Amino acid sequence: MGLVVQKFGGSSVADAKKVMNVAERVTDEYKKGNNVVVVVSAQGDTTDELIEKANEINPNHSKREMDMLLSTGEQISISLLAMAIEKLGFPVISLTGWQVGMKTDSNYSQARIRKIDTERICMELDKKNIVVVAGFQGINKYDDITTLGRGGSDTTAVALAAALHADICEIYTDVDGVYTTDPRIVKDAVKLSEISYDEMLELASLGANVLHNRSVEMAKKYNVNLEVKSSFQRVPGTVVKEEVDMEKMLVRGVARDNDVARIAVIGLKDEPGTAFKIFSLLSKSKINVDIILQSIGRENTKDISFTVTEGNLNKALEILEQNKDLIGYKDISSSTNLSKVSIVGAGMVNNPGVASKMFEALFESSINIHMISTSELKVSVLVDRDVAERAVKAIHDKFDFTN
Amino acid sequence: MGLVVQKFGGSSVADAKKVMNVAERVTDEYKKGNNVVVVVSAQGDTTDELIEKANEINPNHSKREMDMLLSTGEQISISLLAMAIEKLGFPVISLTGWQVGMKTDSNYSQARIRKIDTERICMELDKKNIVVVAGFQGINKYDDITTLGRGGSDTTAVALAAALHADICEIYTDVDGVYTTDPRIVKDAVKLSEISYDEMLELASLGANVLHNRSVEMAKKYNVNLEVKSSFQRVPGTVVKEEVDMEKMLVRGVARDNDVARIAVIGLKDEPGTAFKIFSLLSKSKINVDIILQSIGRENTKDISFTVTEGNLNKALEILEQNKDLIGYKDISSSTNLSKVSIVGAGMVNNPGVASKMFEALFESSINIHMISTSELKVSVLVDRDVAERAVKAIHDKFDFTN
Repeated sequence: MGLVVQKFGGSSVADAKKVMNVAERVTDEYKKGNNVVVVVSAQGDTTDELIEKANEINPNHSKREMDMLLSTGEQISISLLAMAIEKLGFPVISLTGWQVGMKTDSNYSQARIRKIDTERICMELDKKNIVVVAGFQGINKYDDITTLGRGGSDTTAVALAAALHADICEIYTDVDGVYTTDPRIVKDAVKLSEISYDEMLELASLGANVLHNRSVEMAKKYNVNLEVKSSFQRVPGTVVKEEVDMEKMLVRGVARDNDVARIAVIGLKDEPGTAFKIFSLLSKSKINVDIILQSIGRENTKDISFTVTEGNLNKALEILEQNKDLIGYKDISSSTNLSKVSIVGAGMVNNPGVASKMFEALFESSINIHMISTSELKVSVLVDRDVAERAVKAIHDKFDFTN
Repeated sequence: MGLVVQKFGGSSVADAKKVMNVAERVTDEYKKGNNVVVVVSAQGDTTDELIEKANEINPNHSKREMDMLLSTGEQISISLLAMAIEKLGFPVISLTGWQVGMKTDSNYSQARIRKIDTERICMELDKKNIVVVAGFQGINKYDDITTLGRGGSDTTAVALAAALHADICEIYTDVDGVYTTDPRIVKDAVKLSEISYDEMLELASLGANVLHNRSVEMAKKYNVNLEVKSSFQRVPGTVVKEEVDMEKMLVRGVARDNDVARIAVIGLKDEPGTAFKIFSLLSKSKINVDIILQSIGRENTKDISFTVTEGNLNKALEILEQNKDLIGYKDISSSTNLSKVSIVGAGMVNNPGVASKMFEALFESSINIHMISTSELKVSVLVDRDVAERAVKAIHDKFDFTN
């Protein structure tokens, strides 16, 4: 007998029929003799509807009141799922974030989990109750409701799995696992049966959209075995864990991220501290920078190019313009309509041929590369957005992804 | 500087515009230099929509999960109202039932308040925050969410006013006060400036629908001054308090209640214990009986007639039929399509002429009376529903209600 934590997203509980489907998945696990903790998100569009309600009244609402409002979405889901499980005749109890002892800091709308007081949840599991927990929410030291921000429900599930020493944490989503690339783009994308935390982290941040990085980081930290599975199809998913057979496949997948804009700062003095000045200014404004590239410019100057998300582009440009004298540069240019295409794989670092194989694939398809960035686990290139799908296909074809 | 508790019902916060209107009412009070605690109900149809969602999944849901679900309605309202008050530039904080220390028993869906831990709310008032509290909800000793049942938000407001020793508890509703009868039926109904707790209790239970009895009982117990006011018009309302000038007006009002069905148990043995048997059986099934009338029947038998709410009629008949041998009667009959019309007034007990004046009004309008019930504060008659409005008008015309 083990302990299984399951997490179902908003689209998995969007209506009464889907809630019943989840109840069946949950009770099937319980029938095997396992203890089951289920984490759910708000139903379908509930969160968007609540945001709209708030903005209609006051678009400049405090984050504290917004968290008070948004946390109702998950509370609705847990009670409805509990009712569905009651209908199937199983013992069940729903618990909100504060009832489950999910203690966070006071950073409303993007709170971090501090600790979980598992007393209540353990008591309910001892009573053989299926425990349905509201994802995405917690309370701070003032007993005020907080929400965990993007990927919050996944994080709730992984944090509970860690605190309860669960045997596995199953993340149910629209897709049935992690693929070598987006199956909507490349027909013969292959589902991975296993992937390491680090590879998953690179894939997630590169736009694979299956698991949020934060939950994978936490799973890695506490060594929680994750499985990404389909809410609707009953097929094996992808297990994310510490060690996978690294020899088996060099490249795990090909990812694409469209949310990328490039800024070039041109004509910087070639002296120490220029990069520091630029990136400390951006970091103070909480702008994350992804790929950074520095090149030698003309007449004792250098150029620095880097990418940010499209949402941060204007703010970043503004900061750079306001600090033109401090930084000391000649010109700034920016471009959008770009995509980042990446290959990810733990075995890559010891196989220098991997990167050149990727460049070869792009060359054969006449695709121009704007920037290149490499790490131990990935190679990323920046290309025009209108050729990005073609780039993904070409790279995917070049590597052998048969499992 | 005083402390004012205000309560706004679901129709007062039904949409963004109405929420802003409430925010203005609240901040006007705050601008006078008062501490303000505001209790709100769920928006408009929210509660009905949540009930529908639940029933779609499982009509036989547990009450515990239903309370978990329904309590989100008020939580949505408090956060939206807080945002509206923020927009007007005033310091505000919203608090749920559990945050405000509303401790109840574990009788889900109709919990009773046990005590209020006012620490948090006092702290917020000390900080000069306007405190917006979710009505209708609390928590039990297991830290599970409970709801207070019908009239719950009024009860929350009065309980808070009592615990915080508020100067006044203002109940804002669709109507602008307590009238001598339903102004939709009788055009020249008069608004009362004052009414005693006891009179209000009789009027509420007789179908005046302005304040729920439970909140008036609590106001009486803790001597909380209530004022019933309009959410939309800025006019004085009706103050409900301990002592009013009893000499001023004998009859306070005329009320009508359509939710009434009559059961007649015919041919009971004329021996002790028959009434006890009937009413203890009904009370065990939590069926409230209103008017009871016993009359002599034929051949050493007696008949007992009584009224119940229409919703309890079938259940009551079933219980009586199942226990026919135990009770010992010949026949049962029942009738619906009835109304109870009542006059209420504290001065009534010392003025026997009041009842006969009421009967005279009905006689002059050729309205037949099926049952009569009197108490120190009221005279009620049962009439056919299709003449009930006419009865109210005739009685109201007979008495002089000019303030």
